[in-house]
Amino acid sequence: MASSSSYSNSPCAACKFLRRKCMPDCIFAPYFPPEEPQKFANVHKIFGASNVSKLLNEVQPHQREDAVNSLAYEAEARIKDPVYGCVGAISVLQRQVIRLQKELDATNADLIRYTCNNNNNDDLPGQGSANQGGGGSSSTSLGQQSPSDYYYPSPWNNY
Amino acid sequence: MASSSSYSNSPCAACKFLRRKCMPDCIFAPYFPPEEPQKFANVHKIFGASNVSKLLNEVQPHQREDAVNSLAYEAEARIKDPVYGCVGAISVLQRQVIRLQKELDATNADLIRYTCNNNNNDDLPGQGSANQGGGGSSSTSLGQQSPSDYYYPSPWNNY
Repeated sequence: MASSSSYSNSPCAACKFLRRKCMPDCIFAPYFPPEEPQKFANVHKIFGASNVSKLLNEVQPHQREDAVNSLAYEAEARIKDPVYGCVGAISVLQRQVIRLQKELDATNADLIRYTCNNNNNDDLPGQGSANQGGGGSSSTSLGQQSPSDYYYPSPWNNY
Repeated sequence: MASSSSYSNSPCAACKFLRRKCMPDCIFAPYFPPEEPQKFANVHKIFGASNVSKLLNEVQPHQREDAVNSLAYEAEARIKDPVYGCVGAISVLQRQVIRLQKELDATNADLIRYTCNNNNNDDLPGQGSANQGGGGSSSTSLGQQSPSDYYYPSPWNNY
């Protein structure tokens, strides 16, 4: 929840930063409480107060807190990593998804090979064989993931 | 590679957008060729030309192309999704990584259970048992992933 209501006597972090009077209808006040000055300083440095204000006016009021939080996340990431910002995180996560999917496919292939080679072996009381969709805790893990289920377009190819 | 060198007779996309003369030392020209006008329009809309110029001057020349491309990626994502921008992609990818890791752990557990229950069965010529680290195509997949190897801090909890 936006948390500035208890600070109505103080200007919000944005108005304090911009050295202006914080009016009751200030678009920033609900999302930039005075006790979080760095949040506004970051989004101001990366996006500019005017752009943030424009964006807040373009989205629905109930979406503004999420919008501010995502802007603050992007701004902080860009300050920490001026070259890649949070796009670096996307690349890292994409590589992790691809690696995990490959490992899962290979492990599923191993499991299927084991169950096929032991298809006459019924010494697992109470469990069906894995290639029949039974087999313990991961009965769904034998299903192949559709590439479209996990693939997210790479920001660019040479990163 | 930056690609504006063959367009030295045309102003770069940034100078054309800003209606100013494109000088030989234009900071934007190598990264905003005239044939990609939308690229600059997007970063200008989201970050502002002044902020982009400042950021380019803060990073090393060899990093500027990557910096521009990551800014362009972020800007396009924010235009498509004004509330979450590319932070939405981070949340999606994080959930995929967590889901895949759980599936992989469960599949590995199944595989270990099968090999333990069949530890006297040596009808897989040429292959060691999986719980000894052998076992075909995914010999590395039995290793548990360290959470720190895939976990990336969530942008926020309630997304």
